Amino acid sequence: MKVAIVGVSGAVGQEFLRVLEERNFPLDQLILFGSSRSAGKKYLFREREIEVKLLQHNDDFKGVDIAFTSAGGGTAEEYADTITRYGTLMIDNSSAFRMKENIPLVVPEVNAKDAENHPLNIIANPNCTTIQMVVALNALEQISHIRRAYVSTYQAASGAGSAAMDELYNQYRQTLAKEKVSVEKFPYQLAFNLIPQVDVFTENGYTKEEMKMYNETRKIMHSDIQVSATCVRVPALRAHSESIWIETERPISVEEARAAFSKAKGIVLQDNPAQKEYPMPLFVSQKDPVYVGRIRKDLTNENGLTFWVVGDQIKKGAALNAVQIAEYLLTKR
Amino acid sequence: MKVAIVGVSGAVGQEFLRVLEERNFPLDQLILFGSSRSAGKKYLFREREIEVKLLQHNDDFKGVDIAFTSAGGGTAEEYADTITRYGTLMIDNSSAFRMKENIPLVVPEVNAKDAENHPLNIIANPNCTTIQMVVALNALEQISHIRRAYVSTYQAASGAGSAAMDELYNQYRQTLAKEKVSVEKFPYQLAFNLIPQVDVFTENGYTKEEMKMYNETRKIMHSDIQVSATCVRVPALRAHSESIWIETERPISVEEARAAFSKAKGIVLQDNPAQKEYPMPLFVSQKDPVYVGRIRKDLTNENGLTFWVVGDQIKKGAALNAVQIAEYLLTKR
Repeated sequence: MKVAIVGVSGAVGQEFLRVLEERNFPLDQLILFGSSRSAGKKYLFREREIEVKLLQHNDDFKGVDIAFTSAGGGTAEEYADTITRYGTLMIDNSSAFRMKENIPLVVPEVNAKDAENHPLNIIANPNCTTIQMVVALNALEQISHIRRAYVSTYQAASGAGSAAMDELYNQYRQTLAKEKVSVEKFPYQLAFNLIPQVDVFTENGYTKEEMKMYNETRKIMHSDIQVSATCVRVPALRAHSESIWIETERPISVEEARAAFSKAKGIVLQDNPAQKEYPMPLFVSQKDPVYVGRIRKDLTNENGLTFWVVGDQIKKGAALNAVQIAEYLLTKR
Repeated sequence: MKVAIVGVSGAVGQEFLRVLEERNFPLDQLILFGSSRSAGKKYLFREREIEVKLLQHNDDFKGVDIAFTSAGGGTAEEYADTITRYGTLMIDNSSAFRMKENIPLVVPEVNAKDAENHPLNIIANPNCTTIQMVVALNALEQISHIRRAYVSTYQAASGAGSAAMDELYNQYRQTLAKEKVSVEKFPYQLAFNLIPQVDVFTENGYTKEEMKMYNETRKIMHSDIQVSATCVRVPALRAHSESIWIETERPISVEEARAAFSKAKGIVLQDNPAQKEYPMPLFVSQKDPVYVGRIRKDLTNENGLTFWVVGDQIKKGAALNAVQIAEYLLTKR
């Protein structure tokens, strides 16, 4: 099996290398692609150096079985035909194809089956904040239909790429050294701050990031669920946290919810207040599962429940989810 | 007029000094009290040094008109009689008296009148997260009754005192120097992290901090509003942020809400997404008002609205609110 990573130099691209190696993904050949800035660089995979090829409109993808692409929406759209035309399955991490008809949007714990039908040879990987939320919501949807969800996010710097993570570090160094703080990757200084804007604003006052949580959740869950989100960038490094309230058709008790989260695939229940056990981004970094804790009844609504969800944004929120889609399809061959 | 500050060495005590000076509070004599750790220290007020007296069970409060106390719940309870028995009005920042009968709990923008009736010579200052929320809620309550509120907080280190702010700084220094990170004031490392626990847990799984937002809000607003809160400590320094959803009896439009916030006392409307204008804790630090932005319709409920509120935790969330209570009473003399 021949596998390609497109956009290998980015934070998610680098994570693809680690995840494929760590999971011993059954590939025989790995080909790396990048822009002119990263072409020629070399990365280690299974103790062998692989040189990054320039992504071009040519026949380089002929014979490639799966391409994991994480190169931004514009590049994904521009190269989709080049990548897929000889039958390569493109599993794309950008937002370009997520809401398109005939392109499945997949979180394996929730709608793996959707991945089997990909007439355009493209499968879309959802947005990071959506992935970790739907893994949690799906566990409760099995008990009672979820009508609505409120979610406040606490999103790590990693969502803006590895240069953004470096910038955050640097802002702390500058603050401690009493130097002028440089701001490039975020609209404002993030160190010692919060920025209640992720992605650009849409007409209804919500950001694109917030509307992704509305639209993608409905598509993945095949549900009429309504979601109102407030997305906030916080100075954490690579795991996103979410404070969620849901309203279900019939009341779900805390005990039922705990049991459902406990047995759900891809979830670790971490909910023991007496021992100060709850998920925190610093300790969820680099971990595969989605962590759930702080489960309580909604004090305003008998049919409501609230909980706290943390997941590694680069792993389950991006690279790992895409690789799990591929793994699922391999079991169906 | 003779004024005392009790617990002057703490973060809020220090802020009382600044706020009283900055507002030119009409006092003739200021007396400072502290524990044995701070007795003997000297602080500047109106360019004069004042030495901290040891808080004791004696007659030191005889002749004192107003005592601003911020010394923790235990000390407040222990010394309430000593402080008030000769007629001193105690405006207390701890949680000890907030829910007690015959003790008003006051946010001047919301229920100033309640301060006029203080039979026990004690007025309680609400919890910081509650203060900034009710200032915002009250502006909308004038349009339509608020039935319920969901709130996710993003609470700065300052809420745990000045040593906690130092600890956060130090954790960044240690992280950058690749030293072991020391953890004392918070249950876990806060640098590059979030801690979804503020104060201790209660029986229903909510923390005391979260239940304060439920109970205090109802008392201050004289309302049957129900509040479900998730309180999270974040690595900001001294302003708290809150992501809030409300449900009102009749729908409130974004335009109505903006108009209400604009004209409300104590609120600055900062809501211009096109120009990336919204409140952020780094820039609200040291400011008096409560800042409101990101106002949108709730996408799940016609009668719902969501917005983002930021306020300086030590100022409006503590010292300033207490001084405003005193100022209000002075106008009523």
